[in-house]
Amino acid sequence: MSTIELPLTRESIVAAHKLIKPHIHTTPVLTNTTLSNLASTPQSPEALKGTPWEGQEPAKPKFRLFFKAENFQKIGAFKVRGAFHAVLRLVEEKGIEEVRKKGVVTHSSGNHAQALALAARTFSIPAHIVMPSISTPSKISGTRAQGAVLHFSGSTAAEREAVVANIIKETGATLIPPYDHPHIMLGQGTMAHEFAAEVSDLLAATPELSIHHKVCQDGQDTKEPALDAVIAPCGGGGMLSGNAIYFHNTSTRVFGAEPSFEGADDARRGVAAGQRITSVKTLTIADGLRTPLGPHTWKVISDNDYVSGLYAVTEQQIKDTLRLVLERMKCFVEPSAVVGLATVLYNEEFRKMVEREAGEGGWDVGLIFSGGNTTVEAIVKMFGDVSEDKANREEGVVGADGRKVAENVAG
Amino acid sequence: MSTIELPLTRESIVAAHKLIKPHIHTTPVLTNTTLSNLASTPQSPEALKGTPWEGQEPAKPKFRLFFKAENFQKIGAFKVRGAFHAVLRLVEEKGIEEVRKKGVVTHSSGNHAQALALAARTFSIPAHIVMPSISTPSKISGTRAQGAVLHFSGSTAAEREAVVANIIKETGATLIPPYDHPHIMLGQGTMAHEFAAEVSDLLAATPELSIHHKVCQDGQDTKEPALDAVIAPCGGGGMLSGNAIYFHNTSTRVFGAEPSFEGADDARRGVAAGQRITSVKTLTIADGLRTPLGPHTWKVISDNDYVSGLYAVTEQQIKDTLRLVLERMKCFVEPSAVVGLATVLYNEEFRKMVEREAGEGGWDVGLIFSGGNTTVEAIVKMFGDVSEDKANREEGVVGADGRKVAENVAG
Repeated sequence: MSTIELPLTRESIVAAHKLIKPHIHTTPVLTNTTLSNLASTPQSPEALKGTPWEGQEPAKPKFRLFFKAENFQKIGAFKVRGAFHAVLRLVEEKGIEEVRKKGVVTHSSGNHAQALALAARTFSIPAHIVMPSISTPSKISGTRAQGAVLHFSGSTAAEREAVVANIIKETGATLIPPYDHPHIMLGQGTMAHEFAAEVSDLLAATPELSIHHKVCQDGQDTKEPALDAVIAPCGGGGMLSGNAIYFHNTSTRVFGAEPSFEGADDARRGVAAGQRITSVKTLTIADGLRTPLGPHTWKVISDNDYVSGLYAVTEQQIKDTLRLVLERMKCFVEPSAVVGLATVLYNEEFRKMVEREAGEGGWDVGLIFSGGNTTVEAIVKMFGDVSEDKANREEGVVGADGRKVAENVAG
Repeated sequence: MSTIELPLTRESIVAAHKLIKPHIHTTPVLTNTTLSNLASTPQSPEALKGTPWEGQEPAKPKFRLFFKAENFQKIGAFKVRGAFHAVLRLVEEKGIEEVRKKGVVTHSSGNHAQALALAARTFSIPAHIVMPSISTPSKISGTRAQGAVLHFSGSTAAEREAVVANIIKETGATLIPPYDHPHIMLGQGTMAHEFAAEVSDLLAATPELSIHHKVCQDGQDTKEPALDAVIAPCGGGGMLSGNAIYFHNTSTRVFGAEPSFEGADDARRGVAAGQRITSVKTLTIADGLRTPLGPHTWKVISDNDYVSGLYAVTEQQIKDTLRLVLERMKCFVEPSAVVGLATVLYNEEFRKMVEREAGEGGWDVGLIFSGGNTTVEAIVKMFGDVSEDKANREEGVVGADGRKVAENVAG
């Protein structure tokens, strides 16, 4: 990375956005009446059986949902934002000739590898990607197709880092880490800058999309048209911290969502314990969220002034939400992308908090569809054994907990 | 239906659009570099083995593709356009009180039933939907959720029509057929009016999206920024005829695409033989395209001045294309929606024709994603047995015929 680090402020994000805008897509903001209505319907008492909220009165929060569709982003995920920002700042510092001579390097088999390969190729910079030799052939050829130089390593962190160190020694390449660096965090924060502007434009053109519209008409509420909250998926924490930095000291609160499976909710548990969890070993289907926070992202995410809360959802809730997004919104997203929506639909702790904080009014909530890089095979594997759900589904258009979905309406 | 029939002209479609616009979504137009590049890459000689084009030199057409995303339409399919138009014309003719008293009726278990139920409910008009009693419970409850009155019948056409006749006798309800009526055809044609305007705006803002951009810059081509062709899926022919009427006597040629499985390409075969095929029995996975043309749609579609050609694609080509749209475009669509794109990618007769007609320049082609009403279960069923394809897929990011997809880029 470049050695000059920008301050973690909204101004740095606005500057980052200006820099990367020519190279990324301004992804659209989507709304969906069916899902907003479903989120605004209390869960059934039956659905709470076996959960920590069994026997409690189901929460009755009201929501209007806004979705930032980063699954339509280049390479199919938000990761290009951070990658382009980090590369452009490096070029700014060292000069394009120097960077072209020495190149960039990262260790990742996921979206960050493809994002860095694309950013590097755009400026004719060599990109070295270190992957475990056991990576799936599709990931290997996918990254190779972006023009990167592949290097293989063993599958432990130590083995990967040894290969990276060797590449740096031989080529002088600069390491661009997947999330734990200010320039990556600020780059991911650019989505928040777009999101806020897009929602503001949308509500100016169509004020009735906001849950506050009626109240505003009555003249009882003069709230400016802005999101009450944004919920970001949290893996390594690059995206969540970027959003938190952008919305810091505004009327928009920022929350993080994680899978709970096999301890994948390391951020939530770490913040509760007051100490960063540095190692996570989970096979949650939300495979983009299997990593722990790093020191830089931890600093922002553990600060209650930046992130107002962290929530976890189960594998079944992620699957049920993924089905709703595919079938109702007609959007193809990866499991990691829906943990925020799953929180809104199923996490009673979050739902009770919104009911308490918002009262009758409800909240306009922004959710981030982080990416769409899954496959038909993964869907088949995830939903292949549908016998348990099937009878219920065949009965009609129902949410996972039996809440009826009134309309099959996209949009 | 109303007894006053509007003339089948572009002016009627513009008037229809004005009427229905407040009640429908203006669906977005999408572009995708990966798919445009794939379409512009010749198929491999191996891919043509076992096809009518085996041994021939693969065609080398050039394309830029534009997708009208009617899968994001209300009820998840374009059918609301025709349904709202037919209902509003009926109200115009008979008065709202009369229509509210007597209601509307149709026989359909698909998207048209939900579309008519929504249109009727919007104006507090009773809707009677006749469905075979063997319909899937999800379709039954889905239509019931739209507030329609359901009636069950046997599964033959005669049995359904008897129930419809009885409802008309008892209630005085007006029959709104699913496709074979001028008002339905004109209603579906409103998508062409939007599509043309959206592409024109898009090319004004971003001229380099057009395949003619470079040529225009060279000053060798003064073509106005409009689609060279539109390909619409063809089942009963409502959408195809609507597009053909709209683009009649313009520089945009209109083509139809059908599945070939079990004779589902009735329009193509009928036009070739000079006589309408009145009965089709097929279980193609493109389940929205199992119906034959009606007398009204046949009249337009069989007229070469309106529809320049009809092409058919195989079940495997539909599946391969569906996979590309899900994984590359991140759009959730039903199999019927992709037959146009499958034609562009795999039908050598079409590809050779474009190469011949367009030469070096290539074509800007508009494709219509007709709907997105499929389920996770249907995807699992369709792609569940992936053993045959799997080895090939694991090798990397490849098209069905082995063409490499260069980038995993959405947008």
